[in-house]
Amino acid sequence: MIDIAARVYNHTWKIDPIVRSVLDTDFYKLLMGQSIFRRHPDAQVTFGIHNRTAHVRLADIIDVGDLREQLDHVRSLSLTRGESTWLRGNMFYGKRQMFSPDYVAWLERFRFPAYHLEKRDGQYELTFEGPWVETTMWEIPALAIINELRSRAVLKGLGKFELQILYARAMTRVWEKIQFLKTLGTVNLADFGTRRRHGFLWQDWCVQALIEGLGENFLGTSNCLIAMRREVEAAGTNAHELPMVYAALARTDADLLRAPYQVLADWQEDYEGNLRIMLPDTYGTTGFLAEAPDWLAHWTGIRIDSKDPLDGGEEAIAWWRSRGQDPTQKLAIFSDGLDVEEVERITTRFSGRMRLGFGWGTLLTNDFRGLAPAGGLDPISIVCKVISANGRPAVKLSDNPTKAMGPPEEIERYRRLFKVGVQPARAALV
Amino acid sequence: MIDIAARVYNHTWKIDPIVRSVLDTDFYKLLMGQSIFRRHPDAQVTFGIHNRTAHVRLADIIDVGDLREQLDHVRSLSLTRGESTWLRGNMFYGKRQMFSPDYVAWLERFRFPAYHLEKRDGQYELTFEGPWVETTMWEIPALAIINELRSRAVLKGLGKFELQILYARAMTRVWEKIQFLKTLGTVNLADFGTRRRHGFLWQDWCVQALIEGLGENFLGTSNCLIAMRREVEAAGTNAHELPMVYAALARTDADLLRAPYQVLADWQEDYEGNLRIMLPDTYGTTGFLAEAPDWLAHWTGIRIDSKDPLDGGEEAIAWWRSRGQDPTQKLAIFSDGLDVEEVERITTRFSGRMRLGFGWGTLLTNDFRGLAPAGGLDPISIVCKVISANGRPAVKLSDNPTKAMGPPEEIERYRRLFKVGVQPARAALV
Repeated sequence: MIDIAARVYNHTWKIDPIVRSVLDTDFYKLLMGQSIFRRHPDAQVTFGIHNRTAHVRLADIIDVGDLREQLDHVRSLSLTRGESTWLRGNMFYGKRQMFSPDYVAWLERFRFPAYHLEKRDGQYELTFEGPWVETTMWEIPALAIINELRSRAVLKGLGKFELQILYARAMTRVWEKIQFLKTLGTVNLADFGTRRRHGFLWQDWCVQALIEGLGENFLGTSNCLIAMRREVEAAGTNAHELPMVYAALARTDADLLRAPYQVLADWQEDYEGNLRIMLPDTYGTTGFLAEAPDWLAHWTGIRIDSKDPLDGGEEAIAWWRSRGQDPTQKLAIFSDGLDVEEVERITTRFSGRMRLGFGWGTLLTNDFRGLAPAGGLDPISIVCKVISANGRPAVKLSDNPTKAMGPPEEIERYRRLFKVGVQPARAALV
Repeated sequence: MIDIAARVYNHTWKIDPIVRSVLDTDFYKLLMGQSIFRRHPDAQVTFGIHNRTAHVRLADIIDVGDLREQLDHVRSLSLTRGESTWLRGNMFYGKRQMFSPDYVAWLERFRFPAYHLEKRDGQYELTFEGPWVETTMWEIPALAIINELRSRAVLKGLGKFELQILYARAMTRVWEKIQFLKTLGTVNLADFGTRRRHGFLWQDWCVQALIEGLGENFLGTSNCLIAMRREVEAAGTNAHELPMVYAALARTDADLLRAPYQVLADWQEDYEGNLRIMLPDTYGTTGFLAEAPDWLAHWTGIRIDSKDPLDGGEEAIAWWRSRGQDPTQKLAIFSDGLDVEEVERITTRFSGRMRLGFGWGTLLTNDFRGLAPAGGLDPISIVCKVISANGRPAVKLSDNPTKAMGPPEEIERYRRLFKVGVQPARAALV
């Protein structure tokens, strides 16, 4: 029997929307959003898309009209009643009422602000300007839309069975990775793949495969909508945008040097337990740890992002020891371009020496490498980052010079102030 | 939206029937059926299942109640109006009205006759006794049911995603075979996989994949129902049961020796063109060709089944030449346990020397080798063959002694009369 009503209803959509919910975003955006809402309601912050995989000329691949339609559709979204109820009633990281009634009330009224879009040199210049608490919300949907529109453009013209085999191969690949992870013993792993996903349905499939395949070892997903629908944990803590904005807003060099710690001082007023995971690499991990106040050594853990994960892990262990902490009680979360071989390498090195968690992103939700001609579906390294705050340029250095962002003279100033020496470059695959 | 009506309708099925149509059978059963209907309406023929893969204890795997339910369901089937219209109106092998109005009228009234089922030594003894024109119809549905019930038993208890990956892998395997076939140039190939298929939906999927993947090189399917629904050619000619019954009915040694040729003399009164494909191996190909009347050399082609295909092909070419025929105008159809490597081997040897056709069966529609634990889904070599005709035992020798069937003393008698010497044994994988 054909469900005629469903089919006719489907006809009435003008487009096939990629992002269909305010909650189709990463959990940390809401955690950070609440902190911004409380402390920086007036900060004006501009975000912008940057495709580090420059040879993939997105503006030649993705139709600008399609992109506008998808972005405009996001602007029509608002939090639904059930979504609001979930935010108010669900337990996050073991705690109820993680979000204050006034922030949820704000979120209910929230609409995505305007965007600015133009083509430049084969890429899209896509920026979001306005109150930080609003513009921050664009990061994930903007990236997800660009990645999925690229997927759609590449898949256009494939036959029905070619498509089915493409997904059969991709599914088999994910499943084989999951089977491999199971051979590693207890591996605590979460899906961090919203922003770079092949598509929403694909991410949802991957999460369900992880639920069946990993069982208790699957910690949850960063995607709020999928966490809600699949009834798993929503996972995530905080990101570079906090120290980047705090630093950009600093009026003096001393304020600038204090900024990364001020972020975390504010954070621990808002969140506790497993949400107290520091991200130390915004202006170089080594300097950050050397200058860190002692209270940070009491935090639950650390996220190791842009540095070689083995070096970063050893550095964290040494630092905890130097501060009189027991590393075996600490949690290290790895999340930079991870794939299962890297998970194995890290587990082998650190198992029993500290608690480990893995945020598996792009190579979970977008590993179609080699499945389309000319690498057309190979993932790209695309980000949406803070460009400026209250008109002042924002800077990120990280532990990997290829990931540095900001005006060159500002990068130089930050490198000098934060005493960042020579950093080994690592190719950013994703 | 949920189609509630469809879901409730599905609840009302007592079982999930495997064979749902009289036409879910091989085309050659109807061609042979029409000949039997015309010439041997009174012959009483018993068919029986034989599992040559004895170590797979089907009676331990398949529940006898499930098997009875499926067989009983087949007995409830009758030709539908649309199916009858297709048989009357469709063009088969370039000809309209292949089936006479009286045979189609008979088929409209046809119901599957009773079966006899019992367990013996871990196998099912399943026999069909009655008028040949009726019992012949059981061969394909009985085999398809047993094969699919075995698949279902093995798949029971797998997780949703384990199942999805299993099919993803099987689909990828079929698709890679199709891609390999495309590298061989023009390969004329038909699906012959109904009897040993993994399941009906799977066969239907394979046919659709061949339609998209091979295009013009895909000749069609032996399955009438799928040919009708997918609007492709129905393919097939005749089988061992004709000479087996003719031989069993022979009253004298001279009649017995004439029987294989009498089959084909009758056949060419009924069918022409590409349906004039002789199957020479029932009592040994070499003797059959040596004694064959000259009019057989004018037939369109030959099916090479139980002999090594390269030897069989060379033998056919030499025979045609010895009878003054041009082998490049002749058609050789290969159909014994084929897989794509064998297709390549045959194509390489014979391309340009004769026209080639391939009937791809079990390893198209049931290649799940290695995809379930302990080879639980590896295909088995199961057949449904004539046991006796009018109470007299039936015998098959073929070119492969492991495929010989019949009472030992009758096999000896046939071997002596047909002057069958030493035959090389070939393992019957499927």
